[in-house]
Amino acid sequence: MEPGDAARLGPGRAARALPPRLLLMLLLGRGLRGAAAASSYGAAAEDSSAMEELATEKEAEESHRQDSVSLLTFILLLTLTILTIWLFKHRRVRFLHETGLAMIYGLIVGVILRYGTTATSGHDKSLSCTQEDRAFSTLLVNVSGKFFEYTLKGEISPGKVNSVEQNDMLRKVTFDPEVFFNILLPPIIFHAGYSLKKRHFFRNLGSILAYAFLGTAVSCFIIGNLMYGVVKLMKIVGQLSDKFYYTDCLFFGAIISATDPVTVLAIFNELHADVDLYALLFGESVLNDAVAIVLSSSIVAYQPAGLNTHAFDAAAFFKSVGIFLGIFSGSFTMGAVTGVVTALVTKFTKLHCFPLLETALFFLMSWSTFLLAEACGFTGVVAVLFCGITQAHYTYNNLSVESRSRTKQLFEVLHFLAENFIFSYMGLALFTFQKHVFSPVFIIGAFVAIFLGRAAHIYPLSFFLNLGRRHKIGWNFQHMMMFSGLRGAMAFALAIRDTASYARQMMFTTTLLIVFFTVWIIGGGTTPMLSWLNIRVGVDPDQDPPPNNDSFQVLQGDGSDSARGNRTKQESAWLFRLWYSFDHNYLKPILTHSGPPLTTTLPAWCGLLAQCLTSPQVYENQEPLREEDSDFILTEGDLTLTFGDSTVTANGSSGSHTASMSLEGGRRMKSSSEEVLERDLGMGDQKVSSRGTRLVFPLEDNVRLPAQSPE
Amino acid sequence: MEPGDAARLGPGRAARALPPRLLLMLLLGRGLRGAAAASSYGAAAEDSSAMEELATEKEAEESHRQDSVSLLTFILLLTLTILTIWLFKHRRVRFLHETGLAMIYGLIVGVILRYGTTATSGHDKSLSCTQEDRAFSTLLVNVSGKFFEYTLKGEISPGKVNSVEQNDMLRKVTFDPEVFFNILLPPIIFHAGYSLKKRHFFRNLGSILAYAFLGTAVSCFIIGNLMYGVVKLMKIVGQLSDKFYYTDCLFFGAIISATDPVTVLAIFNELHADVDLYALLFGESVLNDAVAIVLSSSIVAYQPAGLNTHAFDAAAFFKSVGIFLGIFSGSFTMGAVTGVVTALVTKFTKLHCFPLLETALFFLMSWSTFLLAEACGFTGVVAVLFCGITQAHYTYNNLSVESRSRTKQLFEVLHFLAENFIFSYMGLALFTFQKHVFSPVFIIGAFVAIFLGRAAHIYPLSFFLNLGRRHKIGWNFQHMMMFSGLRGAMAFALAIRDTASYARQMMFTTTLLIVFFTVWIIGGGTTPMLSWLNIRVGVDPDQDPPPNNDSFQVLQGDGSDSARGNRTKQESAWLFRLWYSFDHNYLKPILTHSGPPLTTTLPAWCGLLAQCLTSPQVYENQEPLREEDSDFILTEGDLTLTFGDSTVTANGSSGSHTASMSLEGGRRMKSSSEEVLERDLGMGDQKVSSRGTRLVFPLEDNVRLPAQSPE
Repeated sequence: MEPGDAARLGPGRAARALPPRLLLMLLLGRGLRGAAAASSYGAAAEDSSAMEELATEKEAEESHRQDSVSLLTFILLLTLTILTIWLFKHRRVRFLHETGLAMIYGLIVGVILRYGTTATSGHDKSLSCTQEDRAFSTLLVNVSGKFFEYTLKGEISPGKVNSVEQNDMLRKVTFDPEVFFNILLPPIIFHAGYSLKKRHFFRNLGSILAYAFLGTAVSCFIIGNLMYGVVKLMKIVGQLSDKFYYTDCLFFGAIISATDPVTVLAIFNELHADVDLYALLFGESVLNDAVAIVLSSSIVAYQPAGLNTHAFDAAAFFKSVGIFLGIFSGSFTMGAVTGVVTALVTKFTKLHCFPLLETALFFLMSWSTFLLAEACGFTGVVAVLFCGITQAHYTYNNLSVESRSRTKQLFEVLHFLAENFIFSYMGLALFTFQKHVFSPVFIIGAFVAIFLGRAAHIYPLSFFLNLGRRHKIGWNFQHMMMFSGLRGAMAFALAIRDTASYARQMMFTTTLLIVFFTVWIIGGGTTPMLSWLNIRVGVDPDQDPPPNNDSFQVLQGDGSDSARGNRTKQESAWLFRLWYSFDHNYLKPILTHSGPPLTTTLPAWCGLLAQCLTSPQVYENQEPLREEDSDFILTEGDLTLTFGDSTVTANGSSGSHTASMSLEGGRRMKSSSEEVLERDLGMGDQKVSSRGTRLVFPLEDNVRLPAQSPE
Repeated sequence: MEPGDAARLGPGRAARALPPRLLLMLLLGRGLRGAAAASSYGAAAEDSSAMEELATEKEAEESHRQDSVSLLTFILLLTLTILTIWLFKHRRVRFLHETGLAMIYGLIVGVILRYGTTATSGHDKSLSCTQEDRAFSTLLVNVSGKFFEYTLKGEISPGKVNSVEQNDMLRKVTFDPEVFFNILLPPIIFHAGYSLKKRHFFRNLGSILAYAFLGTAVSCFIIGNLMYGVVKLMKIVGQLSDKFYYTDCLFFGAIISATDPVTVLAIFNELHADVDLYALLFGESVLNDAVAIVLSSSIVAYQPAGLNTHAFDAAAFFKSVGIFLGIFSGSFTMGAVTGVVTALVTKFTKLHCFPLLETALFFLMSWSTFLLAEACGFTGVVAVLFCGITQAHYTYNNLSVESRSRTKQLFEVLHFLAENFIFSYMGLALFTFQKHVFSPVFIIGAFVAIFLGRAAHIYPLSFFLNLGRRHKIGWNFQHMMMFSGLRGAMAFALAIRDTASYARQMMFTTTLLIVFFTVWIIGGGTTPMLSWLNIRVGVDPDQDPPPNNDSFQVLQGDGSDSARGNRTKQESAWLFRLWYSFDHNYLKPILTHSGPPLTTTLPAWCGLLAQCLTSPQVYENQEPLREEDSDFILTEGDLTLTFGDSTVTANGSSGSHTASMSLEGGRRMKSSSEEVLERDLGMGDQKVSSRGTRLVFPLEDNVRLPAQSPE
């Protein structure tokens, strides 16, 4: 494993140490075959070496067939998962989430592939030739007069060159890690942004930002330092056989700090648990994914000058911080800009008459965010997140009713497929990934570290936030947030992205186990935990939390909504009131058909511009759209003062037309799977308890059980 | 260009002659970068060659960036197309279809890329090394102690090795041809099958099959032979510089016989032209795509034994015919089987309570058809077509109302994006494809040949079909079918699939020009042609054709629907009555919730099985579902005799519950873009003329113009 090995091994027998590419082969599979076929029936008629071409063709065809089979394996896995999920939902089983299930099926198939298939040695023998000084991206090989083009796949870790077994099937089911980043994560992240429950998200924006940014940074550094201690310990007891630097530990801290409480949130959704807790958890997990990506690439970019590349270097440190800020703000801007452009396009064209065109445009614009960010060197996944949020906040209002449901459903399906695919792949990877490094000390250390890392930011941050918050974050909420520190798709994608070195392989294995453990154990324990912590369930998501001063505590009686209007005003900090009024008075009128007419909010000298930008609907829809707008932060009647007492000067009427459709559209914001669940709950014909201290289990036989019973 | 060149060139400077891979790079782009990065911050700390690694990393990053930019180019192209289409639809412009528009934008961008960007020489220099006897699929290169893995891209035509200019941008926007086959065609073809208007399709099934199978075969052979004459002529006048065999001509005949009257059908849809003509054209184009694929691969498989590989060989010929039949029936079976499995799964689970799961399952099952067929060596695209038809015929009935619209919309969006992408790529390829062979003689010959080839099957086949048809195919219909011989996505995809030899390059260029010409000229001429041929428009698609004996002729008066029931009975040939009764009595009850209970149709000894397979809904829904079922071939009351006089024995009631929802679902079969158009037409508040001889132009100002006016 020493660098010297590389020279010693020399041009030996090669193995594909880098994870080969499956989806690529789906795309390309027949490319090879086509090329081979081309040579055999094209100009090669007179060629005497037809036999070997035929062999190449056969081989390519065989390879294509195997690719199809292995992709088929995944599809059947997903199909099986879907059918079992249905069964679980049908029987109202809640201890295992679909993602957990996907992992289990993945595990089973992994075991079968690992121990059921024979380790057939790959029939592609490899050629070695020594060349000058560096690798080129294209290679041309002259084989007795015919030219074959090769492209660079990447470097192979010297230690691995001939230590990997050549099991074709295992290689086939191993994806290129970048597939996760460029194909599977974007729809998941976009959907998260697009389906954000804006009102509760923005109401808790300050806390969410604090948890996501400060929290992730704190967690990263604490985990990194603790793991560095563990690594030191391992070195002392001789458990560590290869290098493991401090930056590696920090990197591990970054990737493992991305929480993904998908299981918990699904149960929250199903049980209609407290909306603010939901918003805190969901918002934190969405944003800390973005933070974790950028943080990890900043740590990677930390390369001190000089010989000792792993010592502390202030210049390099500040460069890393600068990279973090640059990438994050750049990606944010990219996402927001494409969102705004889409909003403008959908506002100023009458595209809403053609939902198909509208949906296609929406899809393309959202995808272009990803590419634009990547083209500019920013992080596409992060850009896509903020694009999703912008689209939901502005563009969504301009879409036709049909396109709203179309876009929601399209991204919902993509998200569902991508997420379950990732989780089933995780299950599979535990057995088929060929470079696992299981280190019990490291794994136990990691479990302790993530526990401490999460505790070290949830409790202190909550304490400081509570100083400023009117609605305090209660102890039970803090415990629940502490408990919900699941790791999922993002941690996995970051960990698998680079498994070249020994340290990275150890991290990958550990991450995989952490994901398994948290998804299964915490996922299964959510329902008992909710009742144990007395977190109220059965809350109408459109309803405000009950207005007592400690309303985040469980309320024993029914809340009266009378005093709501006055209290919600003070909920938001001045910063967000400022933003809200700016958004409401300028951005919304410019980008959507809602909000007050710009002619009333802009200064007089902008009159012409204001008239151009204000759509005629604004004058008509004023009342109902303010209603819909209340979905944002505040209930109406507090901040609309700036507009409320100005008269409409343009040719619009200020009457209150009942644009019930757009209102209905606003109500439809809930993703349709939730609706199904609601319908599902409704079918059981049970009144959901609004008192909070009891969990209602909507069982099939209409039996109400107290929460304590399932334990 | 002689084979000897290869040896002479030896290990020279290489060029990427094979079309590089863009989508691949989207997937992989960062793979390289990641690997490079891995080496630089992983174990390479002590490595002194950090500089060159940094260079590799930079290069990979740069390459990834360029990939993003070029994909972005396509997305912006599509966005532009969508916006212009909207403008056209908004202004009711009909002379240019969206696909034609996409091509024009593609052309413009192609010109810019071709002449606007500098021919930067690619910075990847290439290595050549001579090795043993054949190419391996993996290559390991030892670069001063570090190992780099290379994968085979394919063979490079010897003549092209150093004749290609190294314009990076042009290379970047060139897709791997297999992307078209494995990514873009499947959704287009599946959507065609899924959105088939079953009733009119099945009523004309005999004619459609005749046109698709016999017609395509005739067309292929006539074009092939004519082109062989042209090639001979070119050889005589010295216009041909390379080999061009008879099999190449036949191959060209096969790929150019796939018609794709997308423009004509869009206009038919918009104007509600005659439904039977629509069914004939649409059905023919859908099926002849499948025939053309299989035919072309059978021709490729035609490899006579012995030295003279291009002489006629009866054994090889019959082998080709066998391959054709084998691949076609195999693909058909694959598609039908997965469709049936999906139908069974959706029938026997209560998945319809969870539309998201249902849609995901539907999507996965349909995709698995493609993979299954490819894994078995059949043609995925063909399998997907028949899977789509089966899904529409059986599974669709089992889906929940929400899933019906979801699946329709999902595939509609995918189809729309894929189709416009292909057409804009075609426009681009005219200027960016670097191996065009423009041969005026060949091109003119091809235009004449496709004209004659189409005439040679439309008119004779129509004559023979009319002998057996009750509803004759009138002269105006024959002329319209002759006129509608557009070529599109399938011809392009087949032509670009293999452009290794000189003959194939000439074919590709010619195909491209034929597609351009037919889409623009014929697309623009459809509306005048319709009125010139007196084809009735403004027909309600749910209405039967008026029941006079020559009802395919233009009807001058309103048709009375009174005698319909009796006449439609004789419409279908005995074969289809047989099939219909089998489908209605056995398949539909087994696979869906509709049709008569199996307990009444199966013999008594199958009683238990019949009870298991019959869903309880059947007993309830009997009446209304027979109603919905009439959407199939016949109106009720004729063939349901086998069931009509048997009593329902099981515990169901035979009363006529009005399951209005399922009926409504049946009506919703129309794809939603049509609905939009209808709504769009409806918004103009015009009554569509049902008299047939006049074209109604739904202009914005509610002005009715006779068809002659736009000329």
